[in-house]
Amino acid sequence: MTSTPVTTGPIDLDAVRAGVDAVLNGFLQHKSATAARGNLPGDVTRCLGEFLTAGGKRLRPLLCVVGWYAAGGHDDPERVLRAAASLELFHAFALIHDDIMDNSPTRRGRATVHRALAAGRGHATDPDRWGAGAAILIGDMALAWSDELLHTTRPTPLLLHVVDSMREEIIYGQYLDLLAPDRPLTDVDAAFRVIRYKTAKYTIERPLHAGAALAGVGEAILEPMSRFAMPLGEAFQLRDDLLGVFGDPARTGKSVLDDLREGKHTVLLALAARNADPCQLALLRRLVGAPALDDDGAVDVRRVLEVTGARATVEGMIAARYQQALAAVDDLPCPSAAAGALRHIAALAVERAS
Amino acid sequence: MTSTPVTTGPIDLDAVRAGVDAVLNGFLQHKSATAARGNLPGDVTRCLGEFLTAGGKRLRPLLCVVGWYAAGGHDDPERVLRAAASLELFHAFALIHDDIMDNSPTRRGRATVHRALAAGRGHATDPDRWGAGAAILIGDMALAWSDELLHTTRPTPLLLHVVDSMREEIIYGQYLDLLAPDRPLTDVDAAFRVIRYKTAKYTIERPLHAGAALAGVGEAILEPMSRFAMPLGEAFQLRDDLLGVFGDPARTGKSVLDDLREGKHTVLLALAARNADPCQLALLRRLVGAPALDDDGAVDVRRVLEVTGARATVEGMIAARYQQALAAVDDLPCPSAAAGALRHIAALAVERAS
Repeated sequence: MTSTPVTTGPIDLDAVRAGVDAVLNGFLQHKSATAARGNLPGDVTRCLGEFLTAGGKRLRPLLCVVGWYAAGGHDDPERVLRAAASLELFHAFALIHDDIMDNSPTRRGRATVHRALAAGRGHATDPDRWGAGAAILIGDMALAWSDELLHTTRPTPLLLHVVDSMREEIIYGQYLDLLAPDRPLTDVDAAFRVIRYKTAKYTIERPLHAGAALAGVGEAILEPMSRFAMPLGEAFQLRDDLLGVFGDPARTGKSVLDDLREGKHTVLLALAARNADPCQLALLRRLVGAPALDDDGAVDVRRVLEVTGARATVEGMIAARYQQALAAVDDLPCPSAAAGALRHIAALAVERAS
Repeated sequence: MTSTPVTTGPIDLDAVRAGVDAVLNGFLQHKSATAARGNLPGDVTRCLGEFLTAGGKRLRPLLCVVGWYAAGGHDDPERVLRAAASLELFHAFALIHDDIMDNSPTRRGRATVHRALAAGRGHATDPDRWGAGAAILIGDMALAWSDELLHTTRPTPLLLHVVDSMREEIIYGQYLDLLAPDRPLTDVDAAFRVIRYKTAKYTIERPLHAGAALAGVGEAILEPMSRFAMPLGEAFQLRDDLLGVFGDPARTGKSVLDDLREGKHTVLLALAARNADPCQLALLRRLVGAPALDDDGAVDVRRVLEVTGARATVEGMIAARYQQALAAVDDLPCPSAAAGALRHIAALAVERAS
């Protein structure tokens, strides 16, 4: 692939983030104005706007734009920003519904959508049920609107195929996650399977593929991109699992008790369970998944995750996958600016503290 | 196999229904086989398959196909059936999520998706929460797959615009419905507003518009179609509200207590509240929306709906709107077979007992 005028310098990821946010703001402002004119409830655009501005790394939009550069894209960058923004709106859908299913209290350092809506209905009969129902609808709207935004990009059949696949994969991944309690706690392979569907394909592989599809290239580039995306996606989720238990709540925006209370069957936990002695295993079974788990209990669980070597093993897995991803970039036939951006994003995804 | 609609002679609506069902079956069989090959959970395709075969009038797909005929469509009827089937899959999404929000126990004479899934998890810690979470995901998948099916039709910008509008309207309609408790029980106009968004546009107008868009015509035909669709859609929902309270559960497949327990702010109820004397109004306020409402209480509410004249007024509203819809068909520049089918569907929608 020959380099293009656009990709001669480094790709300015901050500018991409700003461009994506500008598309999202413009889209929601338009929807908000339309709702106001039609006397329709303002909750929907307000909640989505607040959710999107509260944070988020914009990892999927960045990968979409970088995937487009990597595949030699150069025409109509505005169109690519709209597609990238539509992935972020889809992500809002996925997180809002995920938070309802997990009944998570906080996200991005503030109340989750369903909790915030419930809190605003203190006078109602069953504010929690009301909040959950309203948040289901707001998530649904985010999904519908992500599609509307995508439709403004004159999507090619390959782009539609990539996006359709991404949606199916993340939803299956979430469903696999729901079924986790049926599997033995020690099942490391099953935990990796969830990671692949729920995170690696969804967060890294498909956004890159979407960008490539926007560049108008054929399917041949998808597989080399996957060789970068899948190990990086696994590393990203392994880091997320570590942060969920060992992270700094002030930086991650979520309590270090949530994942443990929810009893999330992570690779980290599966490794610990596999290596645990009977006493440690009993402790994990008693405390992980206990809604009433407190800080003292969490300290005990963390100690087991450390002394069984699970934490260190996961760190090793992250490092190995990060190296695999970097090696795959070297093999990717793409402009050097795109390769640089991929390496930079890989570092962000793996070395982050939030 | 899918049957091919013909444009000479009357439109065979049973053949259209069979054709739509064949598309849905084929699509879900394909998805089921893919899931099995990938060792992905079979719940998703099984639940959707059972939901779709349990019943449903296929009103939206029929209107889509008839809208296509009405706008002069003739090429590639298979494509139209796929688009029509995608509307039915979208409808499955809307109903599955609606049933979670209302916590409805039954739909189409059987357990709702979230209840059926919860019942299969008797051994789990909180089967109701598990069932709701799984049903949220299965609804999400129905929405994602409705889009995938739509994408097989080489959608034009007008078709995408119509479908995008339909999704936004139904979700706003559902949200307006959730906000109903904030409005006075006597607010007939507000109840009509919900009907327009949640039903008239979604069930009648947009499916017809989608069919017209598939025929490749311009926007000029949309407005004359709306003059048929909007009054018919209102009449359809008014009939639904009557059936929800006065219907035969053996035919409707749902209890005549659900709507009353849920406290649905229908036009029927608003009219009764507006005409009620203080004693009747107190009875409505006490019983409508009471989760513990029993058969005796329902008899009392029905009596108030009768003696205040609300039931008769709603019957009159249905008749008037039905006539408006028929008059609009007379004005619609379309082949006589399509006009005949529109009249037939209008009668089905208004005179039904289920």
